[in-house]
Amino acid sequence: MTNLPDDTRAALGALLGSRLSLSDSDRALHGRSETHIPDAPPDAVAYPETTEEVAGIVRICAAAGVPLIGWGVGSSLEGHALAAKGGVTVDFTRMAKVLEVHPEDMVARVQPGITREALNTELRATGLMFPVDPGANATLGGMAATRASGTTAVRYGTMRDNVLGLEAVLADGRVIRTGTAAPKSSAGYDLTGLFVGAEGTLGLITELTLRLHGQPEAISAAVCAFPAMEPAVETVILTIQSGIPMARIEFIDAATVAAFNAQSGAGMPEQPHLMIEFHGSEAGVAEQAARFGEIADEMGAEGFQWAAQAEDRSKLWKMRHEAYHSILRQRPGATAWVTDVCVPISRLAEAVEETRAEIAASSIPGPILGHVGDGNFHAILLTDPGDAREEAEAKRLAANMADRALRLGGTVTGEHGIGLGKLDYMEREHGAGWDVMGEIKRALDPKNLMNPGKMVRQDAG
Amino acid sequence: MTNLPDDTRAALGALLGSRLSLSDSDRALHGRSETHIPDAPPDAVAYPETTEEVAGIVRICAAAGVPLIGWGVGSSLEGHALAAKGGVTVDFTRMAKVLEVHPEDMVARVQPGITREALNTELRATGLMFPVDPGANATLGGMAATRASGTTAVRYGTMRDNVLGLEAVLADGRVIRTGTAAPKSSAGYDLTGLFVGAEGTLGLITELTLRLHGQPEAISAAVCAFPAMEPAVETVILTIQSGIPMARIEFIDAATVAAFNAQSGAGMPEQPHLMIEFHGSEAGVAEQAARFGEIADEMGAEGFQWAAQAEDRSKLWKMRHEAYHSILRQRPGATAWVTDVCVPISRLAEAVEETRAEIAASSIPGPILGHVGDGNFHAILLTDPGDAREEAEAKRLAANMADRALRLGGTVTGEHGIGLGKLDYMEREHGAGWDVMGEIKRALDPKNLMNPGKMVRQDAG
Repeated sequence: MTNLPDDTRAALGALLGSRLSLSDSDRALHGRSETHIPDAPPDAVAYPETTEEVAGIVRICAAAGVPLIGWGVGSSLEGHALAAKGGVTVDFTRMAKVLEVHPEDMVARVQPGITREALNTELRATGLMFPVDPGANATLGGMAATRASGTTAVRYGTMRDNVLGLEAVLADGRVIRTGTAAPKSSAGYDLTGLFVGAEGTLGLITELTLRLHGQPEAISAAVCAFPAMEPAVETVILTIQSGIPMARIEFIDAATVAAFNAQSGAGMPEQPHLMIEFHGSEAGVAEQAARFGEIADEMGAEGFQWAAQAEDRSKLWKMRHEAYHSILRQRPGATAWVTDVCVPISRLAEAVEETRAEIAASSIPGPILGHVGDGNFHAILLTDPGDAREEAEAKRLAANMADRALRLGGTVTGEHGIGLGKLDYMEREHGAGWDVMGEIKRALDPKNLMNPGKMVRQDAG
Repeated sequence: MTNLPDDTRAALGALLGSRLSLSDSDRALHGRSETHIPDAPPDAVAYPETTEEVAGIVRICAAAGVPLIGWGVGSSLEGHALAAKGGVTVDFTRMAKVLEVHPEDMVARVQPGITREALNTELRATGLMFPVDPGANATLGGMAATRASGTTAVRYGTMRDNVLGLEAVLADGRVIRTGTAAPKSSAGYDLTGLFVGAEGTLGLITELTLRLHGQPEAISAAVCAFPAMEPAVETVILTIQSGIPMARIEFIDAATVAAFNAQSGAGMPEQPHLMIEFHGSEAGVAEQAARFGEIADEMGAEGFQWAAQAEDRSKLWKMRHEAYHSILRQRPGATAWVTDVCVPISRLAEAVEETRAEIAASSIPGPILGHVGDGNFHAILLTDPGDAREEAEAKRLAANMADRALRLGGTVTGEHGIGLGKLDYMEREHGAGWDVMGEIKRALDPKNLMNPGKMVRQDAG
C-alpha cells in the first residue's frame, strides 16, 4: 500500500510513465538495508533518465510535501537510503553513463548511477582509473553522498578529494552546478564539498566531475603475519612516517583470517595480518616494497607472500573485499552490525586492542579489520536475529567503540556515514557544529523534504 | 576618525584594554592592500589573545551591528581583509602559537596568526613540514580563509586538503569545532571545508588542525628553458600523465625572466622556463628527475641547471617567490593588478597563449607566471597610478582572462580568492550556486556582520 497523494501519483505517472513503480516488491527492495537497520520502504520508486526529470520529480513532490530519497545500489551500511518518513525513492539505475572522459585533464564527467566497477571498465583503455574503492560495487552517486573511501584512501584520498564538481537538484527543483574541471579553485564556498557527504539531505546529485588517476605502471602486493596486533599497527605508523607511499594497507585480525580460511581455503596462519599494495614505476615499487619489508621484519613480521602477478593480487583483494560476507557465513543466518570508527594513527593500537578485548569478553563474535593507514577500522558484530540479549550486546559494543573513538580524538564514522545508524552520536562528535548543520539544512531545504529523518537534529525538523 | 558607537568602544576597551587600537595609523595599516584595490580602513583594530576574547569581541560587535573582519598579515591580493563596510578588524598577531604537534599522527594544532615560515621553523626538528606555500609569508588563518595554495599544491594539495579541522567563532559568538585529528571522517556536513575558503564571511577562524607531511629525504630541483610556451606546457602535461610526482612545477615567461635578470643578475636566457622540484627518497628523486629530463629533452628543453644543493635550491625558489616584487620593480611606482585564473590542463597552452598575445597587443606590461601543474597562472599587469586609460586597460585584460578561464571550463580564481576584486564574476562562474552561497551566508550570519561586502550577492545583504 502506498501513501502517495493521488494527484502526486498522477503527476509523477504523467512524467515518468512505467518508470514510476508502485509495486510492493519494488518498494520492499528499496526499503531494505544490508545490516541491522529495520526496513522502511518508500511509497513509490522513480527511475528518471535525465536531470530535468529529476527536477520534475522534485517539484511535484515538493508541492505535496512528499519526501525524496536517492538510491544507488543500496549497499550503504547505515540505512541512508531507507525511506524513514516514506516518500519517493529516486533510483539512478537509468542515469549510469560516462558522459565525458578528458584523458589530458584526468577528469571524467559521469552520471550518479554508474558503479565504480563499470566506470573502471570504461576507463580501462585510457590508461586512467578511478581509485576510490569501498569494497562494495557501489554507485558513484552513493559513494559521493556518503563520502565513501575504502582500501585506497591512504594513497588516493576519499570521495571528498576525488570529486571536483557536481550537479545537484535542490529541494525546490533548482539545478546547480558546483566546481569546475580545473584542478583547484578558490572561488566561493566549497559547495562541492558540502554536497559530498551530505547523504542526500541537501539535494539529489545528478552528475559528478571526477578526478582520475593514472593506472600504475607497476603494482606489488603482499600479505604478512604478525605475532600480535600492536607490531602490525606499529609497522603501519613507521611506514607512513618514512614517507613510503602505500596504495593500500589493511589490517585483518585472527578471527577475520579464520573466516578467510573457512571461506576460500586460504590456509593462512590464524594471526593478525597486514595486506599491502604499492603503486608506481617498476623501480619505485621495488624500492618501496623493500623498505616496507625491512620495517615489517624489524617488527617481527613472518611468512611474507608477495603477489607480483595480477592474478595473485586480484585473489588477495577479492578475499579482502569478500571479508564481510565470509565473516557473515561464519554464523549462518546472523545479522551484521558493521561498526566504523577512525582515530588518529597514534591511538590506533590502543583503540583496536581495547575493542578486541571488549568483544572477546562479550557474548557475540566480532572480527576486526580496517584501513589502518587511515586509522579506520571495523568490527563486524554478529547477532542471532531476534535475540534481544545479543542485540543489546551489539549495541553496547558499537556505542563503546564510538565513545572510544571520540575519547581518542577521532570520529564515530570514518567512511560509512551517519544514515539512521549514527544520528545519536552527532551531538557528541560535533557539539554546536551539529546545530550549524541544521541551520544549513533548513536554509537549503526548509520543508525538510530531502532524505528526512537523517543527518540533523530531528526535533528541529 | 572612527564611527564605532561609544558603548561598543567602551565595551571593547573594557575587554581588551590597550589591545583595542583606534589610532589613525593602525587603522590605515589595516585598511590597505598590496594591489590596486582602494583603501578601506576599519573603525578599530582588536588584538585578541584567546578564543574567548574573540567570542567576546564578536558578541559586543553583534549587539551593535558592527562588522567584523579578520586580519593575518594583509598579504591577500583581492582586498579580502579591507573593511569595506567599516567595523572592527580582528588582528590575530597575538594568537600565533603552535598549540600541539603530534609527530606520530603528522598533525599540528595552531593558532591562526602564525605564519607559514614560523610554523615550519618550529616543525624543523620533528622531521615534518607544512608544505602549502603561497609565496608570501602569510598566516595560516589567512591561508585557510582564502583557500590558498601556491607552488607545492601539485604534490601536497591546497589548504582545502591540509586543514583537518578548525575552531571558529560564529556571528552570534558561538564557538564551534569542526573535524577531528583522525585522517578522515564521514560524520556529517563538511563544515571544515565550508569555512576554508569562506574568507571570514561565516565566522572567524581561531584555531586550525593541520595535516603535516614528512620532510623529504631527498630533494632535487632544476630550471630549464624552452623555445616557446607550448612545449613547456606540453612537458607539464606529459609529466603528469606519466605519473611522475612533481613537488613543484612553475612556468615563467620571458618577461618574468627579464625581471629576474634585472633584479638578481640571474643571467638566464630571456625565454619561457620551467622551474621544477622533486621530493622523495634518494633513488626515487633521481629516477623522477631522469624521467622528467627525458620528456623535457624531447620537447626541446635547453640549458638544464640542476640544483642538488640546498643553497642553490633556496636561491632558485627565493627568485620565484620574489617574482612579484621583481616584476613591480620593472616599472617603479606602478600599481599591480595580479590576475589569477585556473583552467583544465588541456586548455592551459591555449589560455596562456591567448593571454600573452592580448597583453602584448595592449598598452601595458604583464609578465605571466604560474603553477602550471595545477593549470593555474597569473599575469601581473602594471599600471601607472592615476592613469585612467591604463587602469581601464588592466581591467579589460583581467576581465578577458576571467572570461577566457570560464569559457575553457576553468575558474576565475585558482588560489587568490574573491575578496573585493572578483565579486563581479561570481554570477557567471556559479549561476544558481551563487544564490545557494547567499542562503548559507544568511543562515549563519543573518545580520551580515562577518566581513560584509564580500563573497555573496550584495543586493541580498
